Amino acid sequence: MVHINNRFLDLPGSYLFSEVARRVSHYVSQHEGERVIRLGIGDVTQPLTPAVIEALHKAVDEMGCADTFRGYGPEQGYEFLREAIVENDYRRRGIEIAPDEVFVSDGAKSDTGNIGDILGLDNRVAVTDPVYPVYVDSNVMAGRAGTYLGDGRWSNIIYLPCTAENDFVPALPAERPDVIYLCYPNNPTGTVLTREQLKMWVDYALCNDTLILFDSAYEAFIRQDDIPHSIYEIEGARQVAIEFRSFSKTAGFTGLRCGYTVVPHEVCARDEKGAKVPLGSLWNRRQCTKFNGAPYIVQRAAQAVFSEQGAKETRSLTDYYMRNAALIRTKLQTAGLQVYGGENAPYIWVKAPGEISSWCFFDRLLSECNIVGTPGSGFGAAGEGYLRLTAFGSYEDTLEAVERIENWKL
Amino acid sequence: MVHINNRFLDLPGSYLFSEVARRVSHYVSQHEGERVIRLGIGDVTQPLTPAVIEALHKAVDEMGCADTFRGYGPEQGYEFLREAIVENDYRRRGIEIAPDEVFVSDGAKSDTGNIGDILGLDNRVAVTDPVYPVYVDSNVMAGRAGTYLGDGRWSNIIYLPCTAENDFVPALPAERPDVIYLCYPNNPTGTVLTREQLKMWVDYALCNDTLILFDSAYEAFIRQDDIPHSIYEIEGARQVAIEFRSFSKTAGFTGLRCGYTVVPHEVCARDEKGAKVPLGSLWNRRQCTKFNGAPYIVQRAAQAVFSEQGAKETRSLTDYYMRNAALIRTKLQTAGLQVYGGENAPYIWVKAPGEISSWCFFDRLLSECNIVGTPGSGFGAAGEGYLRLTAFGSYEDTLEAVERIENWKL
Repeated sequence: MVHINNRFLDLPGSYLFSEVARRVSHYVSQHEGERVIRLGIGDVTQPLTPAVIEALHKAVDEMGCADTFRGYGPEQGYEFLREAIVENDYRRRGIEIAPDEVFVSDGAKSDTGNIGDILGLDNRVAVTDPVYPVYVDSNVMAGRAGTYLGDGRWSNIIYLPCTAENDFVPALPAERPDVIYLCYPNNPTGTVLTREQLKMWVDYALCNDTLILFDSAYEAFIRQDDIPHSIYEIEGARQVAIEFRSFSKTAGFTGLRCGYTVVPHEVCARDEKGAKVPLGSLWNRRQCTKFNGAPYIVQRAAQAVFSEQGAKETRSLTDYYMRNAALIRTKLQTAGLQVYGGENAPYIWVKAPGEISSWCFFDRLLSECNIVGTPGSGFGAAGEGYLRLTAFGSYEDTLEAVERIENWKL
Repeated sequence: MVHINNRFLDLPGSYLFSEVARRVSHYVSQHEGERVIRLGIGDVTQPLTPAVIEALHKAVDEMGCADTFRGYGPEQGYEFLREAIVENDYRRRGIEIAPDEVFVSDGAKSDTGNIGDILGLDNRVAVTDPVYPVYVDSNVMAGRAGTYLGDGRWSNIIYLPCTAENDFVPALPAERPDVIYLCYPNNPTGTVLTREQLKMWVDYALCNDTLILFDSAYEAFIRQDDIPHSIYEIEGARQVAIEFRSFSKTAGFTGLRCGYTVVPHEVCARDEKGAKVPLGSLWNRRQCTKFNGAPYIVQRAAQAVFSEQGAKETRSLTDYYMRNAALIRTKLQTAGLQVYGGENAPYIWVKAPGEISSWCFFDRLLSECNIVGTPGSGFGAAGEGYLRLTAFGSYEDTLEAVERIENWKL
């Protein structure tokens, strides 16, 4: 009798975004003619930039010609892209990363979801709360989460609440985790860690033999000089941290699919006998066995992001969204709402007024302003009472949305 | 103390293809000026066809314009591609598959590697021998393979030898497996199963509650009318089989990355209580959690493969490789070698002359003819004494290679 992986049945049935979609679709069907503005899902709206488009066309032509056609590429990514990443995302910030520590992929979701393949099932996992659901769900599937306690919590996961009360800075855990996921700039709260706050985590990991899985998919949105873009800006991080990056939000690649994972040579974990094993060799084996590399044309597009012209265009793109973020922040504050994030990240975390719940706030915003957000409680128990708005809409839509909120009788 | 997944250390260290690359590179460095022809790795050499290139350019332009830009697509693939697949790969052959049974991905390697995520670790797995290494290695990583016995074999895997003695038709297993991987047309042997032979497997699966993971990545190379292209041509297969397909070999997408997996609504496995659970819902959840869809531009390229012009071009492409296959078959037979496959598949499985080993044959072919093959023993114990040649080279290279073999003093 063939068996399923029973852990899948432990996952709660309704997804956050499908429930949001259901409520929006129901509302729209009942209110024809009303224009609903969607600031819920974190998907970009602006097109790929000219340098990226040009690189794609050129690479497509190469693929149509026998002399320049490329079949299977290296599973780890082409050297031209790994070197561009090392040079532009790291060396320019004074960080030394070797090209063979960079593993190019089809996106940070795949990598953060698949990284568990190389880790033992007995590892204890910690996450901040609220949190990007992939970290938790992929561990549920693998069997590391324990039993579901309701309220988005699992018996074997260590939760580190991030709320206005602790200024969204997670406290060090009382119980030692083997693995901790950190995402900064943070999805969903849009908050960041200072260098000192991040150093606290690296030091903790060094002292406690803990692996940090650091998701910096939103680093391109950092505007303050003293906020670290990479965990490797912190001394000692090469020994304890794997970093995940993405071109999705940086350069509008959500529909083009490219990201990468950095596994420094020093990052190790223990085998059954207690010996240290470099995680880079395991990740390499995992990728060679279950992945065949990102498309050549997409890797050329990613390379173009680092060209002089590409870098300028990409900066304009993130500036465009950060103008939206500033607009949302300011106008919502003027309207008397408490808002967080949005200064170094494309997300704004809004406190629901008058102690109402996330879903209640969501429903009121939808029905009274025709604006779609994402209920904070969907990201974890500590997200209850908050709502996430994204800066990824068009400027015009964002402007109209905040004007509606300004005129809203809260 | 953070732990690795210890199963990774069980995997033998040297990969087949890296050992091949090492020996070739060593040989080339010692013999400057000799032209080595590579018929080893199964990678295509001909460029993408004009219809595909045109679709790519068009889709790239859409991505550069705000009105037509696409961000995140459905994790399962766009409707336009799922419907084109259903219509062209199935309905035209009289098979009814619903679009929501099709899951578009970045390739069959990813899907055959990841499918284990949804299956329990207690399932007993069977593979044909020789076999595509991903099936075995991904099960080793998950912990289903048991201990390594040497010689490419694992204690908990059921092997079904395919050799000249049984005409490369695997016998039904003496011990019942929960899951069996079948790949037809076969990689590496290039052999096929007739409708009756495949029916035997479907009937077995129906009687024994066994799940068939059917890899038909090479179906486009079938030239005989009576050979099934899809397992769903066999009655009852919808209840017991998941099918994997790829555009890699069909349309030269090895560097572009697109494939798909079909999970019929009826295919189920049991949960811990013995209740039947549809595997499609689990695969959907897996893909939504750990994958973000194939690139939009790549899906448009895949759709173009099914256009009238695209279908013609694709047929020419596979015809080109099948001409090579016929050439290799005929000329090697003339040279007195025993060859198999190559009539409905782009692989030719060559018996090493005079009872020499696969690696010995490989070394002689390299040093005496300057031709690179792949040692059959690298695909499993039953591959010992064979060597795989691929038809994916250029016609000119293939012609020169077979002429060298014709003139070879065996």
